[in-house]
Amino acid sequence: MAAPPRLALPQVRAAEQRLRGRLHRTPLLTSGSLDRLAGRRLLFKCELFQRTGSFKIRGALNAVRSLVEESERDGRGLPRAVVTHSSGNHGQALACAAQAEGIPAYIVVPRTAPRCKQAAIHAYGATLVPCEPSDESRAETASRVVQETGGVMVHPNQEPAVIAGQGTIALEVLEQALRPDVKVFAAEPRNADDCYQSKVRGELIPNLHPPDTIADAVKTSIGPNTWPIIRDLVDDVLTVSEEEIKRATRLVWERMKLLIEPTAGVGVAAVLSEQFQAVPREVENVCIVLCGGNVDLSSLTWLTDLPGKAE
Amino acid sequence: MAAPPRLALPQVRAAEQRLRGRLHRTPLLTSGSLDRLAGRRLLFKCELFQRTGSFKIRGALNAVRSLVEESERDGRGLPRAVVTHSSGNHGQALACAAQAEGIPAYIVVPRTAPRCKQAAIHAYGATLVPCEPSDESRAETASRVVQETGGVMVHPNQEPAVIAGQGTIALEVLEQALRPDVKVFAAEPRNADDCYQSKVRGELIPNLHPPDTIADAVKTSIGPNTWPIIRDLVDDVLTVSEEEIKRATRLVWERMKLLIEPTAGVGVAAVLSEQFQAVPREVENVCIVLCGGNVDLSSLTWLTDLPGKAE
Repeated sequence: MAAPPRLALPQVRAAEQRLRGRLHRTPLLTSGSLDRLAGRRLLFKCELFQRTGSFKIRGALNAVRSLVEESERDGRGLPRAVVTHSSGNHGQALACAAQAEGIPAYIVVPRTAPRCKQAAIHAYGATLVPCEPSDESRAETASRVVQETGGVMVHPNQEPAVIAGQGTIALEVLEQALRPDVKVFAAEPRNADDCYQSKVRGELIPNLHPPDTIADAVKTSIGPNTWPIIRDLVDDVLTVSEEEIKRATRLVWERMKLLIEPTAGVGVAAVLSEQFQAVPREVENVCIVLCGGNVDLSSLTWLTDLPGKAE
Repeated sequence: MAAPPRLALPQVRAAEQRLRGRLHRTPLLTSGSLDRLAGRRLLFKCELFQRTGSFKIRGALNAVRSLVEESERDGRGLPRAVVTHSSGNHGQALACAAQAEGIPAYIVVPRTAPRCKQAAIHAYGATLVPCEPSDESRAETASRVVQETGGVMVHPNQEPAVIAGQGTIALEVLEQALRPDVKVFAAEPRNADDCYQSKVRGELIPNLHPPDTIADAVKTSIGPNTWPIIRDLVDDVLTVSEEEIKRATRLVWERMKLLIEPTAGVGVAAVLSEQFQAVPREVENVCIVLCGGNVDLSSLTWLTDLPGKAE
């Protein structure tokens, strides 16, 4: 196996060029009441307002446009199809990007993925292929579809063009607000803490079992192409409980009136956690990426059954 | 009884000066998918992001600051208290404005008002006085509290300083986007259609019974100070069903990721209604004020029980 490609700034800059004018420049919002709760200045990068309702369109569109540019350069036709597996947001994003270029898309979706995300994938004209909710079933089903269709696999988080596309969030935030001497914190559910475990042990440790978490968009494990980036560039990984995720999500709904999905609440929960209080006070300005807003509105018992009020 | 004071542009301009730097300048957002559904260009004035979660702070703060300025001019002390009745948003707004000036606030609240709004009024340090959910009980209870406290009544929608403060939304929208040759449409629930009935009959007709509508912030009737403004300046009144309000609210949640309260969905429902399709095509750009975002998140059955999907 070849050494994993490392994310380099030139790839992210190229993605930024490629995506120019094709995406929304999402706002960086602030909230006085959340600043008070966190004890620092918070900047919320509102990727829930991004096309397809999450940041995933950045990576998907960069990957699809790269394929189109390669076809044009080599004088070949467009790819026969693009294929991926996704719990929802990357699936929507790839379906949308492929539709824009007239390329058929096949999205392998765990049976347990939120219905609203499945419906949106369908609405972008893609073909849904159901699988079981495990890393293995996703990968196997996607491989089979690639063979059957002659399509190109666009992995949701290991494809370098996808990784580079997602990286454009950082360039945008740097332009909008921050100086470049930043620390990078990752946040994940304690019930799906493969990133945390990998950092602690110094080697890639995927989740052993399909994780049980309300944050449906981070159920997949990190992989060989993302692990070196996380190992070398992420300063610390914070983990939060399911209750912390739900409370943080409700807090953003109540106070900021932003309909984030629970996965976007993971970062908010991390910044509000006791653990984060130990981060030195010099870290005054904290940007949180509100990664998506694709909430299943037909199933909100996790929210309405939550005891007590938000802060 | 004196002739009702008419809303004049100088009063709104004075309110704009008085409020400068004390409020958020809320964004005017757009949505490609809602444009497609409406068949026109829609501009959403996001007052759900306003301080206290609704536009009502504009009027409340203008009223309270006016009282403070009068006290200073006359060399008197501050008012002993401010008093109002409100189903929630004006109550929160007045509580917040009074707290900022160190004036006690008494808010008469119908027992049926959303709990989140009652909790927010309490959090701004105001005293809640419960009443029955009828126009009469509100008015009587508030009168009693004024007598007992020696406070000043700040009526939620008939106080001229409140009306002028709310009018600043229009000045802001004109600055942000529109040319001044605008038509003005009002929208209200069919179950609380006093404004529509008044326009049809050419005289002020309050709701006969406490209305039953999901749009809790428009349950009170229009009054003698707002009726002449509506009579002379509003081009048309559109009414919508409870189901239309709920569907429009869910649509904005799903597509725009904005947590509007159902009352803010009334205007969206009106623009998406068949009735609005009859408005001439020259009306190309439509601004909808998303008036507030104070949703009771512990009680969302109206949303989760709604059959079918949004568009």
